[in-house]
Amino acid sequence: MKLLEERIQKDGVVKAGGVLKVDSFLNHQMDVDLFDAMAEEWKRLFANRPINKILTIEASGIGIACIAARHFHVPVVFAKKAKSINIDGEVYATQIHSFTHGREYEVIVSRKYIGPEDHVLILDDFLANGCALEGLMSLVKDAGAVVEGVGIAIEKGFQRGGDRIRATGVQVESLAIVDSMDEKTGLIRFRTKEAGEQ
Amino acid sequence: MKLLEERIQKDGVVKAGGVLKVDSFLNHQMDVDLFDAMAEEWKRLFANRPINKILTIEASGIGIACIAARHFHVPVVFAKKAKSINIDGEVYATQIHSFTHGREYEVIVSRKYIGPEDHVLILDDFLANGCALEGLMSLVKDAGAVVEGVGIAIEKGFQRGGDRIRATGVQVESLAIVDSMDEKTGLIRFRTKEAGEQ
Repeated sequence: MKLLEERIQKDGVVKAGGVLKVDSFLNHQMDVDLFDAMAEEWKRLFANRPINKILTIEASGIGIACIAARHFHVPVVFAKKAKSINIDGEVYATQIHSFTHGREYEVIVSRKYIGPEDHVLILDDFLANGCALEGLMSLVKDAGAVVEGVGIAIEKGFQRGGDRIRATGVQVESLAIVDSMDEKTGLIRFRTKEAGEQ
Repeated sequence: MKLLEERIQKDGVVKAGGVLKVDSFLNHQMDVDLFDAMAEEWKRLFANRPINKILTIEASGIGIACIAARHFHVPVVFAKKAKSINIDGEVYATQIHSFTHGREYEVIVSRKYIGPEDHVLILDDFLANGCALEGLMSLVKDAGAVVEGVGIAIEKGFQRGGDRIRATGVQVESLAIVDSMDEKTGLIRFRTKEAGEQ
């Protein structure tokens, strides 16, 4: 998606260790007009899917998911990162390893809000090694629901999580795929689509 | 706001200890059409304020704030609950006591995304004892910015945080104020507005 790639090139900051900081518009300060354009693109890409629920994970996915929900006209559920005393009853739970924070954390979704009748679009801001996404997919599977697709804002193509998940047959639509980035020059190279792809 | 009060009465669950569970539509599963109606109401209530930024706190505030931002046409910043290695440079920080989780936590906002030029609308899902809100207000003050107002979905009127903050002169607009609730009958009593108020 040209608009997002241009914004990443303009406002993203490449840091040591493969870190791409986009907190000026994506995951600390949030440009909701940009989210709206992203949502339209996901709506186009998943137009043929019978999506009736959007699943994301706190915190950075929530804004994107809520704006997208206005285009899909479905509820959003966000997976919570720690057991809260305000979640009662049974939950689906899974462990996710965070490379960013260097630890394991538990992610939960109440059984009340996802079930066998659900056709789920998973949305998140980043896809790198794929651990968070695989955790969300495992929650959907545990619930007996169907993963209709995965929408990602920025995929780090050089970390292979996206390729591994696509290989299982899941439709993963990343609006910008970073294939390489150089912390010295700040240059970010995006994956170009094959002829015939949109 | 009638629509929200009716939804709380219909789908909210009163639990022991003054807990009101609204996770079917507000803070786990999210009804984004309802959020849109809430956003319209805040836009009306704060129409005369020169708001150029919305501040909220992760996680439950983010969805509400992003939908509201589409009405106010301003960026959203969400305060983060723990120091992340992805936040560099300097931050404004404050300590908040969570009665829900029974602990203190640190809340931060990057200095890059809030400053003396900002006129801030603070939005959040709940207002009870007011600790989280006072933390956010202290971040805005530290940044030299102006709190133009506070928009809350559900205020627990019997916990006095809202009244204490209103007494300081801040415009606090809670779309539903619960004055009492009964865990045995499930009855929720809302504060009625005075004649002349909208």
